[in-house]
Amino acid sequence: MSRSALQLRSLVSEDNTLTLSLEDVDIPEPGPEEILVQMEAAPLNPSDLALLIGPADVSKAEYSGTAERPVVKAPIPEHLMGMVKARLGQSLAIGNEGAGVVVASGNSDAAKALLGKRVGIVGGDMYSQYRCVHTMMALPLEEGTTSAQGASCFVNPLTSLAMVETMRAEGHTALVHTAAASNLGQMLNRICINEGIDLVNIVRKDEQTAILKEIGAKYIVNSSSDNFYAELTEALVATGATLAFDATGGGELASDILNCMEAAAARNMGEYNRYGSDVYKQLYIYGGLDRSPTVLKRGFGFSWGIGGFLLTPFLAKVGLEKSMEMRAKVAAELQTTFASHYSEEVSLAGALSKEALGRYSQQKTGEKFLINPSA
Amino acid sequence: MSRSALQLRSLVSEDNTLTLSLEDVDIPEPGPEEILVQMEAAPLNPSDLALLIGPADVSKAEYSGTAERPVVKAPIPEHLMGMVKARLGQSLAIGNEGAGVVVASGNSDAAKALLGKRVGIVGGDMYSQYRCVHTMMALPLEEGTTSAQGASCFVNPLTSLAMVETMRAEGHTALVHTAAASNLGQMLNRICINEGIDLVNIVRKDEQTAILKEIGAKYIVNSSSDNFYAELTEALVATGATLAFDATGGGELASDILNCMEAAAARNMGEYNRYGSDVYKQLYIYGGLDRSPTVLKRGFGFSWGIGGFLLTPFLAKVGLEKSMEMRAKVAAELQTTFASHYSEEVSLAGALSKEALGRYSQQKTGEKFLINPSA
Repeated sequence: MSRSALQLRSLVSEDNTLTLSLEDVDIPEPGPEEILVQMEAAPLNPSDLALLIGPADVSKAEYSGTAERPVVKAPIPEHLMGMVKARLGQSLAIGNEGAGVVVASGNSDAAKALLGKRVGIVGGDMYSQYRCVHTMMALPLEEGTTSAQGASCFVNPLTSLAMVETMRAEGHTALVHTAAASNLGQMLNRICINEGIDLVNIVRKDEQTAILKEIGAKYIVNSSSDNFYAELTEALVATGATLAFDATGGGELASDILNCMEAAAARNMGEYNRYGSDVYKQLYIYGGLDRSPTVLKRGFGFSWGIGGFLLTPFLAKVGLEKSMEMRAKVAAELQTTFASHYSEEVSLAGALSKEALGRYSQQKTGEKFLINPSA
Repeated sequence: MSRSALQLRSLVSEDNTLTLSLEDVDIPEPGPEEILVQMEAAPLNPSDLALLIGPADVSKAEYSGTAERPVVKAPIPEHLMGMVKARLGQSLAIGNEGAGVVVASGNSDAAKALLGKRVGIVGGDMYSQYRCVHTMMALPLEEGTTSAQGASCFVNPLTSLAMVETMRAEGHTALVHTAAASNLGQMLNRICINEGIDLVNIVRKDEQTAILKEIGAKYIVNSSSDNFYAELTEALVATGATLAFDATGGGELASDILNCMEAAAARNMGEYNRYGSDVYKQLYIYGGLDRSPTVLKRGFGFSWGIGGFLLTPFLAKVGLEKSMEMRAKVAAELQTTFASHYSEEVSLAGALSKEALGRYSQQKTGEKFLINPSA
């Protein structure tokens, strides 16, 4: 095994330029509790994409370097440089999670037990040929599971489970989810169907409705519909959902959801209350597919909350035992409940090709890339 | 004592008209646990005003009736009728709180003990010559306290105390408050000075800065300043405030506060984190002085929350014992910590005069009306 390997890097420099490249990095020696994983698959999630290309204008990118070592340079509009101030000059590795084979281990029993096994791992820097992590960051994949199948075994599966856990912990009985036909959204549907939880799916396109219908979703509302507001309100009346998870963040969708929840609650109200209903309505923003400001038209009284939602603080809050229980469920249901789908598989170098970058930077419906660092 | 008395009423009818008038209502007989109060003073708070005039265009109001029984009719723009749909055709009494003398009581010891006393009361419908309430809704005023002094002994005092209680309960150590020179804001300053809590006051005008300086406020930031963002960030760094109470609700002020809190937190961060700092930032909207949408420019990561805040649910949550403790503090400090100031006192009929209505409907800085139903 050579002493160095390739890693995909993203750098924002003071001249308003984003540079993407493959760099040589030392292959680390695993510590006692660590394993070294030869990476075979890592998904390109929206949160990875945000770190990878930031606010750069990829349509104006220049492609140079060689086929094995491509270099991409893209301009960042001056008014967006504030967004990346904190990462200026830092060459960042990317990739939240992935999967591969354990090719070396530390001396602890936990580490040695994983040697030769295929694992899903989490912890950043996954767009690398090799990645060294603590054994706690690894989920052993069941026999017969490929790295492609196990590449997304942390973020989406645990986030969808966290949504259901949050629903129960905060006293709600049904859920609303936006961008609902995503891999995560499909997992959430399967969990909710399994557990008999009503889930209101909000999508933007008919083709997304079709995807969800096929997996058995009962409540699907299209935000592009002329009757969106009325249709969402009816679904909320039918389900009693007072908790929403929103992947988009921007625009008026969050506001619409809260206002429709309030309209649903108002159906059961007696006399006029200037402060609105006393039904508590909560919405969590867990993504930023729409970067525009969140616009809240506050017609939903005073009994409401909006907040950011992230998996890591959630896991810290529920504790190790609960987290491990959730992981075990994911491992057991990786090819059913938590199955992921990708539209394209590319190599590290391929991820920096004009064709691939042009496509995934647009985050089109159904486009989901998988990077294979061993290809 | 006559069997009926005057009460101020607000009615929205289907023809897009708001009607304000004084109506005859029966004077109720107090039940065993009730007292009948002859009202002498009731403040016109922004929340009262919202119910009183709703979205009507007061500048186009028509004034009729007699001096004793004025009638005001004002048009409501068609596109705003949705806001008042739930109160259509209901003649509403107004006035959150007030003070007066107990002129009759029920047979319980608690009720009889209040006979002849001057009390502050809460529970709505206070713009009335007489108001019958449960003894639990009354706070006996200390000897020598006038009804004008005791008229605002619930909403503002308990809300300002609730802010400090919330700060402690949710693990914050300092506060931010907007519209900070209000009666409530002044109370909050006095509480915080007494208890050694850092409070960042946000005002819009220099004259408001002067009011707060005079009562000893240390951190005052003017949102009209060209350097507002930098000045607010410095105040947040100095105080470590991660909790804000916002009376305005609309526009970008909430967003600015959260972004400045994040900028303050970022000063202490080491490496770049795409998800922002892990410092939890909370903002509560407790009023709606600015009715425009809340616009959130989400540059503050994922560790944040925004919600509505109302006194009544807060008191229900903390329980009776704590609520009573807070009330006792208000009674003891009504002429110091919890002193209120009014710019004008009007009678029930006077509240419906063109001059008064024209002025208080504009909610100008420093304009605070007190209605005296016995005048």
